[in-house]
Amino acid sequence: MKTLIVGGVAGGMSAATRLRRLDETGEIIVFERGHYVSFANCGLPYYVGGVIQDRQNLLLQTPASLAARFNLDVRVDHEVTGIDRDAKTVSVRHTQTGVETVEAYDRLILAAGATARTGITPAGLATRTLRTVDDVDHIDALLRDITGPASAVVIGAGFIGLEAVENLVHRGVAVTLVEFGAQVFGPLDVEMAAPVLDELRARGVDVRLHSTVVAAANGGVELSDGTIVPADLVIDSVGVVPDTSLASRAGLTIGASGGIEVDDTQQTNDPSIWAVGDGVEKIDAISGQGTLITMAGLANRHGRATADSIAGTPEPASPALGTAIVGVFGLTAAMVGWSEKRLVAQGRAHRVVHTHPASHATYYPGAETMSMKLLVDPESDAILGAQIIGGSGVDKRIDILATAMTGGLTASALTRLELAYAPQYGSAKDPINQLGYVAANLAAGTTRNLQWHELEAAQAAGATLVDVRTAGEFAAGSIPGAVNVPLDELRERLGELPAGTLVVHCQVGQRGHTAARILSQNGRDVLNLDGGYRTWTAGVSTLTPATFARKA
Amino acid sequence: MKTLIVGGVAGGMSAATRLRRLDETGEIIVFERGHYVSFANCGLPYYVGGVIQDRQNLLLQTPASLAARFNLDVRVDHEVTGIDRDAKTVSVRHTQTGVETVEAYDRLILAAGATARTGITPAGLATRTLRTVDDVDHIDALLRDITGPASAVVIGAGFIGLEAVENLVHRGVAVTLVEFGAQVFGPLDVEMAAPVLDELRARGVDVRLHSTVVAAANGGVELSDGTIVPADLVIDSVGVVPDTSLASRAGLTIGASGGIEVDDTQQTNDPSIWAVGDGVEKIDAISGQGTLITMAGLANRHGRATADSIAGTPEPASPALGTAIVGVFGLTAAMVGWSEKRLVAQGRAHRVVHTHPASHATYYPGAETMSMKLLVDPESDAILGAQIIGGSGVDKRIDILATAMTGGLTASALTRLELAYAPQYGSAKDPINQLGYVAANLAAGTTRNLQWHELEAAQAAGATLVDVRTAGEFAAGSIPGAVNVPLDELRERLGELPAGTLVVHCQVGQRGHTAARILSQNGRDVLNLDGGYRTWTAGVSTLTPATFARKA
Repeated sequence: MKTLIVGGVAGGMSAATRLRRLDETGEIIVFERGHYVSFANCGLPYYVGGVIQDRQNLLLQTPASLAARFNLDVRVDHEVTGIDRDAKTVSVRHTQTGVETVEAYDRLILAAGATARTGITPAGLATRTLRTVDDVDHIDALLRDITGPASAVVIGAGFIGLEAVENLVHRGVAVTLVEFGAQVFGPLDVEMAAPVLDELRARGVDVRLHSTVVAAANGGVELSDGTIVPADLVIDSVGVVPDTSLASRAGLTIGASGGIEVDDTQQTNDPSIWAVGDGVEKIDAISGQGTLITMAGLANRHGRATADSIAGTPEPASPALGTAIVGVFGLTAAMVGWSEKRLVAQGRAHRVVHTHPASHATYYPGAETMSMKLLVDPESDAILGAQIIGGSGVDKRIDILATAMTGGLTASALTRLELAYAPQYGSAKDPINQLGYVAANLAAGTTRNLQWHELEAAQAAGATLVDVRTAGEFAAGSIPGAVNVPLDELRERLGELPAGTLVVHCQVGQRGHTAARILSQNGRDVLNLDGGYRTWTAGVSTLTPATFARKA
Repeated sequence: MKTLIVGGVAGGMSAATRLRRLDETGEIIVFERGHYVSFANCGLPYYVGGVIQDRQNLLLQTPASLAARFNLDVRVDHEVTGIDRDAKTVSVRHTQTGVETVEAYDRLILAAGATARTGITPAGLATRTLRTVDDVDHIDALLRDITGPASAVVIGAGFIGLEAVENLVHRGVAVTLVEFGAQVFGPLDVEMAAPVLDELRARGVDVRLHSTVVAAANGGVELSDGTIVPADLVIDSVGVVPDTSLASRAGLTIGASGGIEVDDTQQTNDPSIWAVGDGVEKIDAISGQGTLITMAGLANRHGRATADSIAGTPEPASPALGTAIVGVFGLTAAMVGWSEKRLVAQGRAHRVVHTHPASHATYYPGAETMSMKLLVDPESDAILGAQIIGGSGVDKRIDILATAMTGGLTASALTRLELAYAPQYGSAKDPINQLGYVAANLAAGTTRNLQWHELEAAQAAGATLVDVRTAGEFAAGSIPGAVNVPLDELRERLGELPAGTLVVHCQVGQRGHTAARILSQNGRDVLNLDGGYRTWTAGVSTLTPATFARKA
């Protein structure tokens, strides 16, 4: 049995090594069009920044090491240019010599990944992606050649764009970040992305939202608003699209999402061909529909599953949650499942919870505030998504939520999680438990909440906003229209509150909840502003100045 | 409706505040025999060590703040001395004045916690527990009074004992740790506790296993082996037992475990009396039987659930996993569910997996090695327990496993978890996924493993031990009887291996797995030494020198 694999990085190499462990005798050939296999693609930005200093650390394996360990025939600089499905052969071209050969297969695995998205960055502009060892060698050499301060423009504020910015700044480069959309880091909802924008600006990054690069200019590039920004280097991180050229030419089915369509064992519509990685459509855990998620974890896992499938012991894949994380200077931003804006766009009912807990017990030094958001199906109480931003402890909490989603735990069941507690690691009621308590209170009707973007309409409809923080907190900054009645005085001052609907708020939502309970048990119609002053502030900061002036 | 609560720390105070939020009008009185309520009991050792510097940080609430915020009547220095269940009254004594009163109740919540275990520390010896604000005030004052180097003996190497040791050393005190058992930190299995012992000794702690304190001696204490160790201070951390005196005198049912028996809404056999916290029996998630788990998280959660139950919206508690964590200098040790020794003691079938992964991608700076252990039901593939020891990332992984257990995920299903990956946070195949892959390989029979403590018998029965590490690794230290055939030479050197059963091993188990696959597909009867040289080394280090000499 002879297996050919197209692509030798995450998905392809996971398939190759697992297949060898399952089948000691079969022939396995891996074609990689680049010069390196199994390199640390997620580490590339950090090599640019000098965080990873030894280039060898990027090169996890070589053809020789893979031959010795796994008896693999790994051929770098070999591009597969066509598939003859009837003959069960592929055409291969050596990228250096141009020599073309034909190789037969019994089983074929396509793991060619994705290619940079085109059409956003002007065609004539000299840009670099940050996707290969060649890319980082080029960028590194270019920066070394510059004497004096260097400048760069990074186009696109997604995962790679943000990592590129951090690392260029770390290397002393003056960076302009150009983003087409209204926010940085599009996977997050706007109010959750606001701290990322603040962090970027605090680190001296010139962030241009609602902007594109329109042309090269003298010493830099011209943006859509006509300004010219300096750029010794332009990094194109607008995103990727599945590389399906080989698959489409061979007549394999391409899904509606644009990725190669596979079943849950990674098999294409040709029973001799499997496909895996960033070129392949995944099944979304929330919708059950085809979707694109270009994450290394899925590529590795599905690569391994491909080998199981070929070896005759298929392990059907789970739908994909899209768990993801990115570090941006001192911040960590992480998410799983769907965002609020995606739920809104799809017309899917949802309930929202914002909290701002400490990463561990506040009496132990070093606790950092996290901002958490949970999205819940109001019918089933299922967790639809979550977002967390903060410092330490963010990665832990998103992984707990991803695990809870895979385990089918409801939002209210988060209260039941028995998480490890000592004061340097968490809280007796962990932030995850707290999310569950808020969700359970909403599910039970114990509290009703109002979102930051719903406040203006509620006030316009006559609701009174009651700020239950202390007088000192109120004086330091408050929401327009709010009256201040500190929580600890609320029972005595009930008579001061005007008739009609009340919206209460505190700093983060917790005192607001207690206030709402007091008021509702005193017969008042009351809503708690979800996430309190902190979420509201983050939310309104994302509105454009004109809109903000009108709203606030 | 009038509710009395006996005990104003974790469980009692969670019940009180939640009950107020659910019921604005009922009378709630909290009796606390100590002088402080709602204090940070898990922070006490860190105040001794000076990590928490401001004493006020330990005092989260006061009777006045609880009255203002939650309209609670909190009475410190009040000890409840008796319950008249027929009259529905309690007798209360003021601990300062001795004045006795009687208070009626409609609902009574017992949250008196636990008391220090007696019978291990000699009765006449002056010791201090580390359980109250008074305790730490006393210890702090005593240490301040000593000029020159101070010394302490800590009796008992459990959670509090280890935290006490760390903090005393942090404060410059010379510490002897006296432990009755054969290992430190009894909840862990011996080979997992070995690094804790190494860490303690590396930090200069004089650890005495198989030892007890038998008497006071001149300037210190006398141990069971006759040695005298210096001790300006003796901390008694041998453990706690449920404080059930009030409950038993009132004729409430005490469970076989020794804690007050409650149903899953914390109700005792008296329908007007609830109980919560360290004094109460929990239901064990693995056995379904009553058990004692004295963790702040459960006390807080069950306190809140008690309020829900009283308010008429009961939320039945989940069985308890016993998730726990402790920091010991640079190490973190964490566990969930049952240990191997507990499974063995209960005669419960189980499968064991040891791994030693990096906390995040090794090519990114700062990765630390963790040692992980997973215990699996061989019939159902259910996760029965886990233990992790290491540095960063331990708390995250134990919480993921606890969540997986609550979600009912099997060991093999850990492969499906989609955890957040960027190189500073994890790996494309996270250590948790890897645990799942090993477990799935065992479940499928793809690999068979052998435990460190089974090796001697296997060798005695004629098995050949093959060390597949490099020659350099082999030369640096090897297992007696092993022959060295590096993995990358194995295919060529198959003929060198003697007939009969083979046991292969590498450093951590991963290369051993590949070797086992090569050998089994070449027709050999082969087992992989689980966790490799590292687990074996940790395991044999726990044997007494005499035993070790015989075994190794």
